Amino acid sequence: MDIKKALIGIFGKENVRDEPAELYVYSADASVHQSLPNIIVRPETVEQIQKVMEYANNELIPVVARGAGSGMSGHVVPIDGGIVLDMKGMNHILEIRCEDMYCRVESGVVDDDLNRALKPYGMVYPPSPASSRIATIGGEIGNNASGIRSVKYGATRDYVLGMKAVLANGDVVNLGAKTRVEAAGYQIHRLIVGSEGTLAIIVEATMKFIPLPKFRCLGMAIFEKLEDAGDTIADIIGSGSEPSMLELMDDIAIKAVNTASKLGLPEVEAILLFEADGKVKEAVDYEMQGMKAIFEKHNGKVTDMSYDAKERTKIYAGRKKLFPSLSRYKEGFACTSLADDMAVPYSKMAECARKIHEIAKKNGVIMTAYGHCGSGVMHTKILMDPTRKEQWEAAKRAVEEVYDYVDSVGGITSGEHGIALSKAPSWKKARKDLLPVMSKIKRALDPNNILNPHKLMDAPDDWLTATPLRYKVKV
Amino acid sequence: MDIKKALIGIFGKENVRDEPAELYVYSADASVHQSLPNIIVRPETVEQIQKVMEYANNELIPVVARGAGSGMSGHVVPIDGGIVLDMKGMNHILEIRCEDMYCRVESGVVDDDLNRALKPYGMVYPPSPASSRIATIGGEIGNNASGIRSVKYGATRDYVLGMKAVLANGDVVNLGAKTRVEAAGYQIHRLIVGSEGTLAIIVEATMKFIPLPKFRCLGMAIFEKLEDAGDTIADIIGSGSEPSMLELMDDIAIKAVNTASKLGLPEVEAILLFEADGKVKEAVDYEMQGMKAIFEKHNGKVTDMSYDAKERTKIYAGRKKLFPSLSRYKEGFACTSLADDMAVPYSKMAECARKIHEIAKKNGVIMTAYGHCGSGVMHTKILMDPTRKEQWEAAKRAVEEVYDYVDSVGGITSGEHGIALSKAPSWKKARKDLLPVMSKIKRALDPNNILNPHKLMDAPDDWLTATPLRYKVKV
Repeated sequence: MDIKKALIGIFGKENVRDEPAELYVYSADASVHQSLPNIIVRPETVEQIQKVMEYANNELIPVVARGAGSGMSGHVVPIDGGIVLDMKGMNHILEIRCEDMYCRVESGVVDDDLNRALKPYGMVYPPSPASSRIATIGGEIGNNASGIRSVKYGATRDYVLGMKAVLANGDVVNLGAKTRVEAAGYQIHRLIVGSEGTLAIIVEATMKFIPLPKFRCLGMAIFEKLEDAGDTIADIIGSGSEPSMLELMDDIAIKAVNTASKLGLPEVEAILLFEADGKVKEAVDYEMQGMKAIFEKHNGKVTDMSYDAKERTKIYAGRKKLFPSLSRYKEGFACTSLADDMAVPYSKMAECARKIHEIAKKNGVIMTAYGHCGSGVMHTKILMDPTRKEQWEAAKRAVEEVYDYVDSVGGITSGEHGIALSKAPSWKKARKDLLPVMSKIKRALDPNNILNPHKLMDAPDDWLTATPLRYKVKV
Repeated sequence: MDIKKALIGIFGKENVRDEPAELYVYSADASVHQSLPNIIVRPETVEQIQKVMEYANNELIPVVARGAGSGMSGHVVPIDGGIVLDMKGMNHILEIRCEDMYCRVESGVVDDDLNRALKPYGMVYPPSPASSRIATIGGEIGNNASGIRSVKYGATRDYVLGMKAVLANGDVVNLGAKTRVEAAGYQIHRLIVGSEGTLAIIVEATMKFIPLPKFRCLGMAIFEKLEDAGDTIADIIGSGSEPSMLELMDDIAIKAVNTASKLGLPEVEAILLFEADGKVKEAVDYEMQGMKAIFEKHNGKVTDMSYDAKERTKIYAGRKKLFPSLSRYKEGFACTSLADDMAVPYSKMAECARKIHEIAKKNGVIMTAYGHCGSGVMHTKILMDPTRKEQWEAAKRAVEEVYDYVDSVGGITSGEHGIALSKAPSWKKARKDLLPVMSKIKRALDPNNILNPHKLMDAPDDWLTATPLRYKVKV
């Protein structure tokens, strides 16, 4: 049977799209990759998803579930074409139960919408990534997303109590529990967190939330030497301080912000932003003063510190403007999501930043080192001329060298953004023993390999040629 | 080849035992079940475990890994005989890295030993169960153990960053990471947490720890009516209070303690113990006063509250003596671990306790309702004359009825103690859709079904006849 006809039978005409302009939109995410799907459907019910999976499983058609498409590694780029499930229509918050401290949401609910709904109860769902304005809970689960406060509040995986999922064969399964603790069978929902759409379609999630802190204090400290900032990070963590945020910006990040936004940040080797939060001011003070003392011990200078919301916005402005500023750092250079979120042990943050600078210089690209150093995440981006083929070759060498270093110090390829396509080659090299175990589980749950195929362990061995690039490259 | 000879080849003569007295010791845990293994080995290295798994996988011999044997559901009772791996010899703490906030331990390390090692650094590994004096980290991971402070600090699953495991075929695999966040492939270590020894042999774990709180305040509140205590629990949780402990004792629990230990606890319908902890006294005060106000709103009377360690030991004495006291509640009655740790939504705690009392009365057994109500866990025990066959039949009916109720209110069969054998029948009834998915994963990782076979989804349908009982029953 004709795919389109079959899908219209399931979803209705208005929810099945295959116009070229629409397919183009669904061909990319925030990564460097691009590949066209054959058709888009917009599910509204679990039953529709069961039916489409039954159909696709019988007909051996790839299915890619997509939330906001804000992923940075190519998760939802349909490398084999097939059907894209646009989950954004399944955006109902089904239940918020404060007395039981959980909510149930459809997987297309946008992160910020959930937090807007929780706020009147004095509650918050904390592991929001920077893209929370558009990112869906389903996408965040698929990617095990986390954000600036993961140092204190952890990642998505720490909040998923259970889920309803549709398997490759169309079976619907309820996983996990609604209770705080659970010792009742394999915790398959915890396996699905971070599985990048390759094991099941998440249709509903039961999520934990926590009380919104009443006080929040944000500070900025500057360091003449990057190494001092690095020692500070390890000392803060090792001393038992509990920041709710600890962010690093290196000299390139600082310069990018100053160039693009004229904020006049001090042009030092490193800035650390540090925050504490809590219900009781004395406890927040205690954390802030404790961290301040550690900064000073390591030659850091605390330039700002405030509880006031407006002041905090000002202090955070540079960090907030960083990502958009990177695209304007150098005329004609694009900011590409490559080698963009490795995690290393805290004690290696400064060394890792230096290494990134060295590798970038050697290969003729620009790389910045910033990010959630409180949770070990180093965010980098490769700034490069995307029209020049040799710049892509240089980026490829730089990516390889960075990840070889990360692996050598016990770090991991991705702390936040997932593996998908861009990071698969280096990750596969580093995790050889994990791959066959993943493949066994994948085959057990998706024997026909229709759920987001050719990602992770099954991704191509060269990210540069895995798909066409989202950039026009002159040959 | 003769099993014993083969195993001596791997482990050396002194680490292979098959004397009847020794087999008898390894035939039971803290559950009602009993079944003899064929032989015991005491591994000291990962390589030995790889070799024994290769051997057992080829010869199709069941392998059960065992820590302290303190499990309450029959996890390590070798229902098909075979080889028991006594993991207690692999008890080395390999690394404690405060600056990176993780430690690496062999799986036979005893929980209290780990905490003794962390204390000089001002750190603590918090999800310790009541059996932490003997329980091993490997056993706790296998069971996803948690304890009295899970309301604030969560369960074992929240602390396992990674692990080294040996698969059924002898392959060794490194899972997870050493960093706080991770988005780098299937998080199979999180699947193995709570898999009760059926998916892999855990040989090493990378665990997170946290700073030890400086202040701890414990209080006791009494309630004339159980329902008021129940409303208090839901109100405390829903109001955003953050107790580090919230424990319920019902009238039977109180009476048991007073009978056995002459502590003179007030003989009311319910006692709640409540605790807060933290680095800053003002923050602990805030939580304690907030909870006190909620107790009073619901007709509770706060009788004690103290920061002093000695005073806290006194306040906690009744709860501490509860488990041993239950065995002495009624002459000739044993305290059996049956229907002993269901979890229900907080708002259902009081109703659940009443229901347990009703069901016990109806079936002619005694059941108490107590436990970590702050994390939704209701601990019960069935007190019964274990020599009378009809008491076991009554217990079986009571267990069924309790779990039918728990399932009807969105609770789960086990919050802490696992499924294994005792809880498998009711759990299987409640989780029909989960079982085939678990079986697929089990077959993928252990195709010959040699790792702790016939537990969980593969357990017998009647716990009462699944194995001989650990009690002499007159016919």
